[in-house]
Amino acid sequence: MFEYEHKVQYYETDQMQIVHHSNYIRWFEEARMAMMESTGFGYEKMETQGVIIPVVEAQASYRSMVRFGETVLIRPKIKKFNGAVLEIIYDVVDKKTGVLRCQGRTKHAFLDAEGHLISLKYAKPEFYDYFRKLESAQTEPVTKGAQDPDKNPDS
Amino acid sequence: MFEYEHKVQYYETDQMQIVHHSNYIRWFEEARMAMMESTGFGYEKMETQGVIIPVVEAQASYRSMVRFGETVLIRPKIKKFNGAVLEIIYDVVDKKTGVLRCQGRTKHAFLDAEGHLISLKYAKPEFYDYFRKLESAQTEPVTKGAQDPDKNPDS
Amino acid sequence: MFEYEHKVQYYETDQMQIVHHSNYIRWFEEARMAMMESTGFGYEKMETQGVIIPVVEAQASYRSMVRFGETVLIRPKIKKFNGAVLEIIYDVVDKKTGVLRCQGRTKHAFLDAEGHLISLKYAKPEFYDYFRKLESAQTEPVTKGAQDPDKNPDS
Amino acid sequence: MFEYEHKVQYYETDQMQIVHHSNYIRWFEEARMAMMESTGFGYEKMETQGVIIPVVEAQASYRSMVRFGETVLIRPKIKKFNGAVLEIIYDVVDKKTGVLRCQGRTKHAFLDAEGHLISLKYAKPEFYDYFRKLESAQTEPVTKGAQDPDKNPDS
Repeated sequence: MFEYEHKVQYYETDQMQIVHHSNYIRWFEEARMAMMESTGFGYEKMETQGVIIPVVEAQASYRSMVRFGETVLIRPKIKKFNGAVLEIIYDVVDKKTGVLRCQGRTKHAFLDAEGHLISLKYAKPEFYDYFRKLESAQTEPVTKGAQDPDKNPDS
Repeated sequence: MFEYEHKVQYYETDQMQIVHHSNYIRWFEEARMAMMESTGFGYEKMETQGVIIPVVEAQASYRSMVRFGETVLIRPKIKKFNGAVLEIIYDVVDKKTGVLRCQGRTKHAFLDAEGHLISLKYAKPEFYDYFRKLESAQTEPVTKGAQDPDKNPDS
Repeated sequence: MFEYEHKVQYYETDQMQIVHHSNYIRWFEEARMAMMESTGFGYEKMETQGVIIPVVEAQASYRSMVRFGETVLIRPKIKKFNGAVLEIIYDVVDKKTGVLRCQGRTKHAFLDAEGHLISLKYAKPEFYDYFRKLESAQTEPVTKGAQDPDKNPDS
Repeated sequence: MFEYEHKVQYYETDQMQIVHHSNYIRWFEEARMAMMESTGFGYEKMETQGVIIPVVEAQASYRSMVRFGETVLIRPKIKKFNGAVLEIIYDVVDKKTGVLRCQGRTKHAFLDAEGHLISLKYAKPEFYDYFRKLESAQTEPVTKGAQDPDKNPDS
């Protein structure tokens, strides 16, 4: 499981004296980018090579409040990947206590440099393999194939 | 229908040369606050009188990209209100063309100054009436009661 | 004098229950862009035509606190323009009371699409005239030439 | 010398494909807070004990552009501290190359919980000592007293 640490910044708070809810969407991005980079192939290289991965949906359920002075751990996990769609879910927990702060989800498409939708499997097979590798790294290899037929490249 | 206008700011763009997705969550807040204020009773007065309305869930589906130089209209609409929970849905459309840019949703709870969950109907009946009035202003009075039994204050 | 109105947003506050100081730098940008657009030639058109105007210095002196629920007026004024350097100063005042909130300054260079420094007077004379026009609109034509020899296009 | 590391986030970029200039003001805050915390006495404890340290001035000179994928080091240094005023200067350099990216400065006052200006030396001597310690840690003790008579607590 990949885990990303974020120290709460003062500028992330609002006058409710908690972190403003919009920042969690940014934390998801921080964790997602760090997860991609953790395999040695960061998102900036993808953009350089003509693949853009916009967010097509984002969602966050706020479970408990986060305050300045705290540190959170964000745990992104690939929920679905088939070359055309990428779905990631996130848990945000307090670093010290482990208390759940937020659960979220983002959904992504893949575009080429001209902004057209592409399927990585055909358009950029090396990127396809990269996401497959990332997905494998976070689950048990034995149970993976059995749970999700989408993960069979031939289906 | 309440409508809020937002001119896209340069600092809201990212290197994809579109508005960063996290900003739509902020636009929902702008529109929500403006809708509340449109009846002459803004959110800052609620906070002053000890009622806090945190976001407990936020969601956005991005339909088409928004760029610097454009202006969007955000249309918030109360989807559910029963004194304990408030749900608002949002359409974001391009001002010039009317093209749909984003659809979203936020869910809110009501807290007192000590951070305890409250039901406005009992804890702050004048605020309860205020949200009912806001809700009524945006829907047909004839069909409202029939569609949603939650909206009957006596049920 | 050009004047830009900004309604304080909740997400701009911090836990000190005032607007976070970094947002004033963004307000300067909002006002600067609106001033440019007020003459019918917005910044997005400049970028489209290959002129980029990065900020090379920014400064803000905070005179009194701004809170949620308030509206401010931002008054940008061109302090210096010679085709290679643009300096703008800003006053931020409370809309209701006129009380001074902040004074600031930004300094800008002009780059072409390849990122090289350019002088608008030679590289893009129509943009040079545009800024001259903007500058003239905000000052007395009689005193302008006398005060600042830089403003003589033939010098 | 205290040094704070910041990895550039995607949401910090703008459509110029560089970090938006307002974010450096936030980075100064990140580094300042981390410096304060490095001695085991973070800013959130000061606020809890009734001392607020607002920014009364902020300035940044942008020397070279920072892009997504890069990491910067921010080096805050106390320039002046006399119990009533705190001035900090900042260098931002690229982590990999050491190239200077930005130089900045912030100036702060000290307020009590009611928002009145205070001098730490009298109002909160333990906080005064704390900042003195922080200041000493970053300079040579031999030359310090000679350079700046302000730093003599008895003067």
